[in-house]
This record gives sequence, structure tokens and C-alpha cells, in this order.
Amino acid sequence: MTGKAHKDHQAFAANDFAANDWVIPPNLTDHRLKSSIKGMDHHGNSLNLNIIHERAISLFLNGQEIITNMTIGDYPEYLAVGYLHNQRMLKPHERITAVEYDDELSLVVVRTDSPSDYEQKLKKKIHTSGCAQGTLFGDVMDDFDKIQIPLDENQQLDKVKLYNLIKIIALTPSLYLEVGAIHGCVLASHDRPLVYMEDVGRHNAVDKIAGYMAINHISGDDKILYTTGRLTSEMVIKSVLMDIPIVVSRSGFTAFGVELARKANLTLIGRARGERFMVLSAPDRIKI
Amino acid sequence: MTGKAHKDHQAFAANDFAANDWVIPPNLTDHRLKSSIKGMDHHGNSLNLNIIHERAISLFLNGQEIITNMTIGDYPEYLAVGYLHNQRMLKPHERITAVEYDDELSLVVVRTDSPSDYEQKLKKKIHTSGCAQGTLFGDVMDDFDKIQIPLDENQQLDKVKLYNLIKIIALTPSLYLEVGAIHGCVLASHDRPLVYMEDVGRHNAVDKIAGYMAINHISGDDKILYTTGRLTSEMVIKSVLMDIPIVVSRSGFTAFGVELARKANLTLIGRARGERFMVLSAPDRIKI
Repeated sequence: MTGKAHKDHQAFAANDFAANDWVIPPNLTDHRLKSSIKGMDHHGNSLNLNIIHERAISLFLNGQEIITNMTIGDYPEYLAVGYLHNQRMLKPHERITAVEYDDELSLVVVRTDSPSDYEQKLKKKIHTSGCAQGTLFGDVMDDFDKIQIPLDENQQLDKVKLYNLIKIIALTPSLYLEVGAIHGCVLASHDRPLVYMEDVGRHNAVDKIAGYMAINHISGDDKILYTTGRLTSEMVIKSVLMDIPIVVSRSGFTAFGVELARKANLTLIGRARGERFMVLSAPDRIKI
Repeated sequence: MTGKAHKDHQAFAANDFAANDWVIPPNLTDHRLKSSIKGMDHHGNSLNLNIIHERAISLFLNGQEIITNMTIGDYPEYLAVGYLHNQRMLKPHERITAVEYDDELSLVVVRTDSPSDYEQKLKKKIHTSGCAQGTLFGDVMDDFDKIQIPLDENQQLDKVKLYNLIKIIALTPSLYLEVGAIHGCVLASHDRPLVYMEDVGRHNAVDKIAGYMAINHISGDDKILYTTGRLTSEMVIKSVLMDIPIVVSRSGFTAFGVELARKANLTLIGRARGERFMVLSAPDRIKI
């Protein structure tokens, strides 16, 4: 997908990993994502600081408005497709024919080859739940319940590789390090980081990764997902729907997140900082 | 409201503030909020740890299902009423006649004296936005745009009191300190903390405070809201709709959050830790 030779099964020195080794690095060059403002510090002195923007971007699936997302605004096409994918609003047989982003109107339209089928479904959903968001516990959970992530012995991750991955991510200059107030998500192949997405909501960051994967036909079954955010049920469900077997967070986790991960046989790793971590489910994928 | 004498305009030693001085302290006694699970540490040893529960609770306004919220599940009535209040789904003239929580079915029904009026509105909203969540930028913003928080010189907050408040909150045993993976929100009267709510989402924690205020007829105009979460547009909008003039976070802030705070004349304080903080808008309310 990138032409880069990935030495997936060899550990490498984290310091050797360079900015241009990322398929998509943190988005530090798009100046529209941040701006400088004046504030006052605790001594009463004025100060200048860079802060992150958030914008409302509306998502349409064919003729139907789905949701307005608050996002930093980069990769709106990935966010749109990833959101629809992780909400199971795009069905496997449904083909995306176009993804159009209108910057002026702040909206994305995703067009598919079977619009009428979908719109009927949405009408039914609104009737039953009052909110497209509310379908998380309808179709999404039906699909989630069918997934059992297989355990492939060849895909066991050595903890040294995990430490490497965590170190590379920590050393990578990011929007978070520059302006704070956002979450990051990294798609990795073993200990090779590929794509670094950031957003005001951790669900947007992971949806942008899902959209990147869907549009570029990247499979999840040999990947690792790293997130700075907590491992709640929402994050676990999205990861499983993306077919990713190992999810790592530097933050904590909830009981329902752990329960769902165990049900789907997802390896859930929390509180991963430096050379410490906790495995909450499916520990067989980690080689200690 | 509590029978406690609040010495609002005198600083006091943070260490003197005791657990029973809270009107509602962190919810450490409800054992249903957490459970013990087994995990594996980075050495491969098994470990036991306490984790927080999240539950799906559905909210009905009269006969209409509004949303399913993922929440830790304490104070479902406050969460329901606060959500409706902050989404402007309860109009000023509308009187709540009952709030019923069904633990077995995990749903809250809020009943009002003008159900038919509301249901018509919701039908219109679904038609225009596809999702009740999406109305944030409809009615909510119309109301938000009308609010200019007045500057009352008698309500200027001395930074020493702010330090006191931050210290008390930091010293208070919380679910966060016990199990992690949740956000906290504190309603305070000057440097006197009153109510400490925690939840998996910072929006739920602030909605529970809004519900507490609405049900107990507590006004916001002489209060301070402290949150562990970031100051995004959503947090700023909710705070302004609650008539609270000063919002403090130990985390960062987004450009849109700051912009909205300046528009409404809300004092926004970010990165407040120990004796450091930044004031991003309406600094006149803070006495340095």
C-alpha cells in the first residue's frame, strides 16, 4: 500500500524510525487546524498560545443527513466513511461511488450504489430509536456479536515490540504535544506505526483511521490500534468492527469495555506507558 | 439548600474541608459502580484490579425515546433531566411532573405537563437533522446566542480561593483516583465545593450537575464549575446554558470553546493545576 518494505517480524530501534516512515504522520503542516490566541497566566501576565480548532462538519449518506460531528476538520472524507463503517450504516454489499467534501458548507456527502435500500432502513431506525446515534445498540451490536477474532500464532506480539511502538509514538511530534486538548490514534503493523490521526474526540480519531482503511482497502486483521484515550465500550466495539486483534491504550478501561473485548476475543491492553502495561483480555497474543 | 452555613466570602484552609462538607461527595459507597477483574501485568503475572462500570440507560421524554447514554449509572434522574435541560428539550414554561427510573429496564422517563407540544417539535427536528443529537446547532445555539453572562463585581474570585478549590478537589478521594477511566465535575460556590459528579463521559458528569441544579432549583449565577475534562465547545455551551459564570479545567481547551466563551462573557480557565492556570476569556472575574 505504500511501497515501503515493512520488516514486520524483526524488532528495530525506535530511534531509527523517522518522520517520513509514517504513511500518514501527525498533521502538523495544516495551519488551519490551529491558531494563536491571547490569554492571561496566574500572575496576570498576558500570554500567547497555540490552540486546536474544532469545526462542525455534517455528514450526508446519499440524500439523508446523518450527524453533525465536532472535529478538528482534517481528513473529512476518512471521518465520514469511517463513521458510517463503524456505525454499520454501510453494508458489506454496498459500494461507495463518491465521497464529496464541500469545505465552504462544511459537509461531506458519501454516495453509494444502493441509496433507496438504506433510506428505508434509516426511516425505520428513526421510528424505533429517535436518533441514528441510538442504533449503536441495534445493528451495530448484531454485527459485533457475530465477530470472534481468530487467534493466529504467527501474529503474537513480543512485548519488546510493543515497547518499541509505544516509544516511537511518544517520540513523534504531534498536535497533542503542540496544542493539547486532543486525542491520538495510531494504526500499526506489528511495531511499525503507519497512520497517526488526532481529533478532539477519540471516536473521531479512530473513525478517521477506519475511513483510511476502508477507502484504501487495508485489512485490520494483522494490525494494532494504539489510542491515547480510554478503552470504553465504544472504542472496543469500533476496534472489533475494524477486525483489529490488538488494541493498546496509555489510559484506563471500563468494565463494559473489558467485557466486550473478552466476548470478541480482542486483546485489550491498558495503562501502557514506558515499559509497563496491563492485559485485560486475550493475553495469548502477547509474548512476555 | 443544605442547611450548611457557607462562609462564601472568606478563604479557609483546604485541609479543613472534610468529606461530610460535600452536599454530594464522590460516589464511593455504591458498589454497583465498579467491580474487580483479573488481568495480566507486563511481567506476565496475574493481577486484580477495580474497574468502573458503564451501562446503557435510555431516556424517554413523555412517550418519545430521546437517546441511549453510556453512563456509570448513578443518579440516572439527574442525568436525564440535566441532558434535557442542556439540550434545551425542556422549555422554560414546561414543568416536570415526574421523573421515573426503572432499574431493571435501564430507562428513565421524564414526564412534563406539555407533552404534545414537545413531540411535534421532535418530529420536526428529526425531519431536519436526522438525529436529536444534531439539534445542538439548532435550538441550543439559538438560546446560547441570547446569553450574555453579566459581570458582577461582588462575585470576583480571588486566585487564592481558586487554589483552595483546586486543592480540595485534588485531596478528595474520588472514583477517578480509585478506578480511573472517568471524568469528574464539581459544582462550587466560590471556593466551597458542593457537588462532585463523575462519569465515563465528561458531558454526562456535567449533565448530572445540571439535573441536580434543575431539580433542586439551584441557580448557577453565583457558582463555579470545575471539570477534569477538556474545555470543548460542548462544555462551554452547557456551562453557559446553566448560567454559570466561571468554568475551570485542569485540562486544555479548543479554539471554538474559547471563542464561544468570549462571546457569552464566560470566564474560562484552563490547565489549572496546583498554583498555575490560564484565563482564556473574561479575565475580569478573577482577582490576581
